[in-house]
Amino acid sequence: MKIVFIGAGNLATNLGNALHSAGNDILQVYSRTFESASTLATALGGAPVINIEDVTKDADVYIISVKDSAIADIIPSLCNGRDDKIFLHTSGSVPLDVFKGMAQHYGVLYPMQTFSKTKLLDFKNIPFFVEGVDDLAFETSHHLADSISERVYILSSEARKHLHLAAVFACNFVNHCYEISSELLGKHDIPFDVMLPLIKETANKVHHMKPDEAQTGPAVRYDQNIIRMQSEMLRDNPIFKQIYECMSISIHHVAQKKGDNK
Amino acid sequence: MKIVFIGAGNLATNLGNALHSAGNDILQVYSRTFESASTLATALGGAPVINIEDVTKDADVYIISVKDSAIADIIPSLCNGRDDKIFLHTSGSVPLDVFKGMAQHYGVLYPMQTFSKTKLLDFKNIPFFVEGVDDLAFETSHHLADSISERVYILSSEARKHLHLAAVFACNFVNHCYEISSELLGKHDIPFDVMLPLIKETANKVHHMKPDEAQTGPAVRYDQNIIRMQSEMLRDNPIFKQIYECMSISIHHVAQKKGDNK
Repeated sequence: MKIVFIGAGNLATNLGNALHSAGNDILQVYSRTFESASTLATALGGAPVINIEDVTKDADVYIISVKDSAIADIIPSLCNGRDDKIFLHTSGSVPLDVFKGMAQHYGVLYPMQTFSKTKLLDFKNIPFFVEGVDDLAFETSHHLADSISERVYILSSEARKHLHLAAVFACNFVNHCYEISSELLGKHDIPFDVMLPLIKETANKVHHMKPDEAQTGPAVRYDQNIIRMQSEMLRDNPIFKQIYECMSISIHHVAQKKGDNK
Repeated sequence: MKIVFIGAGNLATNLGNALHSAGNDILQVYSRTFESASTLATALGGAPVINIEDVTKDADVYIISVKDSAIADIIPSLCNGRDDKIFLHTSGSVPLDVFKGMAQHYGVLYPMQTFSKTKLLDFKNIPFFVEGVDDLAFETSHHLADSISERVYILSSEARKHLHLAAVFACNFVNHCYEISSELLGKHDIPFDVMLPLIKETANKVHHMKPDEAQTGPAVRYDQNIIRMQSEMLRDNPIFKQIYECMSISIHHVAQKKGDNK
């Protein structure tokens, strides 16, 4: 298919490379800055574009991978005069309806993964969640996802919103726990590397048991002396201290609810 | 060496199996309940003990792997009359001093990992942090760690306390984020399995880049509409909502401090 990418960030870079490798023709990459447009366009064999008016009308599909808050802004000028084209956005949180009244054939192509420009991922195991307002949009989204991934699911906007929130916990908040851990170690000149086997096993464990069965540590044992001492160790950083406290309370609550006694 | 295990929980089960496989002789396993003592003792070829007075005096080393709050309680009766023996505890948070005045040769043998009885781990890559009050205790702890792991570090009680706090973030709080994610998905009948590729890649990423470089999602982009919407989606669960809010603020703060602009 002939594709134009709107956006050249982490997701667009990864998805663009995967769709390009799968044999699609990436005509153009639009970005507000020439540098990002050019970097990705060059990698995908397309042309960089920095004005939305210069986007070609020759593509079959326009894939919108800009940050969520910019999607609604870009749709009117992009979709105008392209009634026969297909428009897909790639966001977890933005509903299908964002296109309503602006285009005829629109859908969602959401790959649930954490992407970085510097680390191109194999899409084979990345779950895709697709949606379409009509057969053409739905089938195009499904087909594009199928061409690069073995895990394609059909999901409504409403369910996708909850999925994305769950992903924020499982990815962004998890990564922030890594950040805090790294910062605490750094203060005592302990290299973050020592934490990697624990990080790996913590992630690995929930591939084999439920997260609530996998839980260990002072909070699930409700070891109040340790909890008090550790909370106090964070007194210089009120936000980290607050995270420590509400996490510990929440772990204890969930364990209590489960009638657990680890 | 001839070893007695005090405790038969997740850590004792994993460490006991590893030390047994490395050729040590596990004479006894003490636990308050006969069932746990017996289960582990049988696996390790030792005898179960449920009264501390029945613990043999024939061992070289007594390894204390009970929950942190129980260590100080068990030390007096365990160490009494065994001045020539070596005592090691396996806790991240309890200082070496807990033995002070109660024993002659004492140390710490802390394997930093999350253990479950049902999942025996290979210790080769598990980092051990060792400490000893004298040469005998230090060398015994170091030797035992060396016999099963390639990553043995010498660390003071003070530094170990901070290491353990960092581990609580990188493991227990991370796992709690998985728990919350699983609960949110469950409410919308989405299987937790779909989250596994994201969980795996999130952990994998920090093996190759720093956690603050790896961060993605609404909070680091400071996408206030999404943050507000997602926070509101958690209104029925005040603790999860509070975790969401302080995590998002903290991610934004850290990114700001870094002058980041993802």
